[in-house]
Amino acid sequence: MSNLYDLGLPKTAANHVALSPVSFVERSAEVFGDLPAVIHGQRRYTWRELRDRSARLAAALRALGIGRNDTVSVMLPNTPEMIEAHYAVPALNAVLNTLNTRLDASLLAWQMHHCEARVLITDREFAPTIAPALRLLRDEHGRTPIVIDVADSEYLGAGERLGTHEYEALLAEHEPLARLEGPQDEWDAIAVSYTSGTTGDPKGVVTHHRGAYLNAVCNAATWTMPHFPVYLWTLPMFHCNGWCFPWTVAMLGGVQVCLRKVDAPHILGAMRDHGVDHYCAAPIVHNLLIAAPAELHAGLSDAGPSGAGPSGAGPSGAGPSSAGRKKIRGMVAGAAPPASMIEGMAQLGFDITHVYGLTEVYGPASVAVQRPSWAGESLSDQTRLNGRQGVRYPLQEGMTVRGADDMVETPADGQTMGEIMFRGNIVMKGYLKNPAATEKAFEGGWFHTGDLAVMEADRYVKIKDRSKDIIISGGENISSLEVEDALYRHAAVLACAVVARPDDKWGETPVAFVELRPTAHVTAPELVAHCKSLLAGYKVPREIRFEEIPKTSTGKIQKFALRERARAGAAVAVAVTAPAAVKP
Amino acid sequence: MSNLYDLGLPKTAANHVALSPVSFVERSAEVFGDLPAVIHGQRRYTWRELRDRSARLAAALRALGIGRNDTVSVMLPNTPEMIEAHYAVPALNAVLNTLNTRLDASLLAWQMHHCEARVLITDREFAPTIAPALRLLRDEHGRTPIVIDVADSEYLGAGERLGTHEYEALLAEHEPLARLEGPQDEWDAIAVSYTSGTTGDPKGVVTHHRGAYLNAVCNAATWTMPHFPVYLWTLPMFHCNGWCFPWTVAMLGGVQVCLRKVDAPHILGAMRDHGVDHYCAAPIVHNLLIAAPAELHAGLSDAGPSGAGPSGAGPSGAGPSSAGRKKIRGMVAGAAPPASMIEGMAQLGFDITHVYGLTEVYGPASVAVQRPSWAGESLSDQTRLNGRQGVRYPLQEGMTVRGADDMVETPADGQTMGEIMFRGNIVMKGYLKNPAATEKAFEGGWFHTGDLAVMEADRYVKIKDRSKDIIISGGENISSLEVEDALYRHAAVLACAVVARPDDKWGETPVAFVELRPTAHVTAPELVAHCKSLLAGYKVPREIRFEEIPKTSTGKIQKFALRERARAGAAVAVAVTAPAAVKP
Repeated sequence: MSNLYDLGLPKTAANHVALSPVSFVERSAEVFGDLPAVIHGQRRYTWRELRDRSARLAAALRALGIGRNDTVSVMLPNTPEMIEAHYAVPALNAVLNTLNTRLDASLLAWQMHHCEARVLITDREFAPTIAPALRLLRDEHGRTPIVIDVADSEYLGAGERLGTHEYEALLAEHEPLARLEGPQDEWDAIAVSYTSGTTGDPKGVVTHHRGAYLNAVCNAATWTMPHFPVYLWTLPMFHCNGWCFPWTVAMLGGVQVCLRKVDAPHILGAMRDHGVDHYCAAPIVHNLLIAAPAELHAGLSDAGPSGAGPSGAGPSGAGPSSAGRKKIRGMVAGAAPPASMIEGMAQLGFDITHVYGLTEVYGPASVAVQRPSWAGESLSDQTRLNGRQGVRYPLQEGMTVRGADDMVETPADGQTMGEIMFRGNIVMKGYLKNPAATEKAFEGGWFHTGDLAVMEADRYVKIKDRSKDIIISGGENISSLEVEDALYRHAAVLACAVVARPDDKWGETPVAFVELRPTAHVTAPELVAHCKSLLAGYKVPREIRFEEIPKTSTGKIQKFALRERARAGAAVAVAVTAPAAVKP
Repeated sequence: MSNLYDLGLPKTAANHVALSPVSFVERSAEVFGDLPAVIHGQRRYTWRELRDRSARLAAALRALGIGRNDTVSVMLPNTPEMIEAHYAVPALNAVLNTLNTRLDASLLAWQMHHCEARVLITDREFAPTIAPALRLLRDEHGRTPIVIDVADSEYLGAGERLGTHEYEALLAEHEPLARLEGPQDEWDAIAVSYTSGTTGDPKGVVTHHRGAYLNAVCNAATWTMPHFPVYLWTLPMFHCNGWCFPWTVAMLGGVQVCLRKVDAPHILGAMRDHGVDHYCAAPIVHNLLIAAPAELHAGLSDAGPSGAGPSGAGPSGAGPSSAGRKKIRGMVAGAAPPASMIEGMAQLGFDITHVYGLTEVYGPASVAVQRPSWAGESLSDQTRLNGRQGVRYPLQEGMTVRGADDMVETPADGQTMGEIMFRGNIVMKGYLKNPAATEKAFEGGWFHTGDLAVMEADRYVKIKDRSKDIIISGGENISSLEVEDALYRHAAVLACAVVARPDDKWGETPVAFVELRPTAHVTAPELVAHCKSLLAGYKVPREIRFEEIPKTSTGKIQKFALRERARAGAAVAVAVTAPAAVKP
């Protein structure tokens, strides 16, 4: 082994710097400084102004004593201040903790205590939750973070002032930091985000600069995003740092359109008013858009209902000089968005890219890259192909489906189930103060997602279920997602969830919880007949219950609560049919 | 300073891997394995086949003793074997030395000796040069690399067999390496490329895996490349590893169309036959395309002559499902391509992105990102804006224009000249065995390009000249490029170069060397009059000489040779007019 290339070729300031997404902010301020960066109600910031505000925030936080590895918690909707926190906190080598704004006071206090928050930046709208959370922190944990109140011009309500500092005043008091720079070591933490916990205690997912940088870049490369996108903040930034998109848009010198309130009129209005061309959202947001009155859809996008197919992996619209509106492109994640949602969005003329990921992998980590040959498939086949979890992000090193016990990769047969696992630079550092959970998550050199899937013949991954959501009936695996997908294909179904109920004869049987659209009607026997037309008999729900479905603060369905309900029996339960013979 | 996030969060196989562009090859083979990867004459390889061939080559080289930091030289045109070398050699942690196929035997021997080549892979076409180079290596340097001959199916000539191994036989003898993997340390060398040396000795530019990975990604992000591009190899891969595009196309699962011979019929034929949508090339190649007969242009691109303006930063064509041909997108580099070239390509309906770079920064390092507002400018203004060196690549950390002596950044006034400098992760490790040159190149924490430029008001950089090419006449700086640009605007001029000649009165005066188009005629006084209509009087060439212009092996004009000629006087010289008054 030669050392020919090791000698006299050291790292210097000229040829090495730690990877950090903060670098994109400086670049856009430098070379696109006069271009628009943020739109929020009547507020407008250029890239130079946004960088300047972020650098003032960084200077103010530094003056408050914030430095390397100090945690800054934020309780903010998708406002300019939330974007600025994503640029300022990492530039201090501090760690950003974005609190889920839907949590209750005790959980907020628990998280801020766990990650040892030294500063809290909070929007006045959340004072009613934050005030008791701060009292809990002080009284139970003996911890008192410095509180900075944000009085957003777009928030019209009241809201107690809780802190000793006011955001805009603080910015005015401090000269901007000379330069927003990354840390010395790109492995340093950039953020800690708590999983919402469909089961058990929340875990603090610690991510690093290197991973955030690479995923920010990979979002752009995977989605073929052009320079200067107009990006709408439908996805909460508190969710995995907005899948790294605050940094992706900075890299591309784009515009971030803020949004305090995520409902169909606000979303569609912002899209129309500001020429939005990109956004990310959960399936549930898309259902809102599909269900919105037709007049809200008018004039949004180039393509009419006929432009329903995938338009290839590249962007559908031409460049800015092209006549007419650009096609609006949405990135949607979720274990398995119902086919009806993908079809519905296509019929509205939106171009939907389907991704899959988790907080532990910085948001999206795989993508259903649309192959050219799909254009020749039928619309329903396109929808099926496009609705899969797909292939790993190009900057992620590995994605596999393996037996969790034997770590053997499952064959690409579309049948054999295994657990989805990732490895590479876009995987978290680990769980904060939880080495046992970290070690378990990384067992065998792969990050275990807990999601069960098959690998199809083209090596695209298709999720079947969360491992704990599989229903085992008469020795057969039933994917609750497959049954839910069948239910969603009934026009009356707004939301549904299928869980296992213990059964003396079959081991488990599927029970469905269903919410109907406001004006729709359907009976349980009708829904069962509908399912029978689509599913093998043993997969048809044994019971259908029209009840409100409990969700976590991030909108995930709480199946563990439903399982308890199913076990306990229920007031509104309507027993329908016995499952058919188990073997098809 | 807290250590909260340093504890219990180690790097593991699950969350850390060295960045290496080799990773893209494995991914495309894994998830796009059945899709086309290479087209070369009648040969076709899928991504699985291309990966398999590369992994066999890697296994064969390993069996020949190649490992970390061992140099593998290649003397290859743009064939599949050249691509395979880019995948196999880095996967062994060895270092790829791509020899410029236009060099003579003594320079080839010098380079292989300097980088201590252990293996040489050589195409039979080059046997007449390589045979004496090998003799020189043996006789003068006592060095005998193992030689592997390539007998390309598309090469119809003869060509002596020089080595003990034949490429295809070697591949057949070895089972493919199980996995193409990057090194343990991403700072390890990936390639050594010799500068062509417009002045002085060639220098061995050592690049690393981290930089090659980031530039490969940045090419795609900067150029908004879609998945599955059809990329034509007009740019020699021996030139800065084809600007990292062998790895960029791997990342996107695209097709690489090989090309042994770079002339207009072959280029335009390949574009038409294979639906090429992306290529890179030097300005001189574009001049060939513009000058080609109209029948060769027919049916190539969507846009007719009216589609002349920049089409925005994004790709111009719609996705693969769009009707009709995609617009062909070219990336062109060079200190300052003449405006006539940019206009000519636009009129042919090509979409040209202008980049700037050097071997030391892995090829392109800055790009004239087309701002949306440019669409409203006149065609000539668009051409001017688009022909600048532009802004740094987003993954490059810094680009500046500074006084080389005081390191003070020049104001963004479009007037003050300084030297272009870069810093960041896409800068070479340094020059092989040349610490003095390395240190000089990195002085003050920036890589010094030696190119002189101004920063315009929008902070886009515009090259004025190589520092040594500036002409100082009567105390005024004259950019030779500006004078050349004026000459190129005359229809009869095929190629030109302007250099300084010592002058007793003015210090220096500009002298122009001109090559005319085959059927064109123009007199020296007519060209002078043409220049006077475009330039201040003192910039007009004092003398115009119709002579062949000497070029380096990479097609760069050898101005040092012309300066000697200008100083010596010349047979064909035609003195024309005295320069006008110096002060404008």
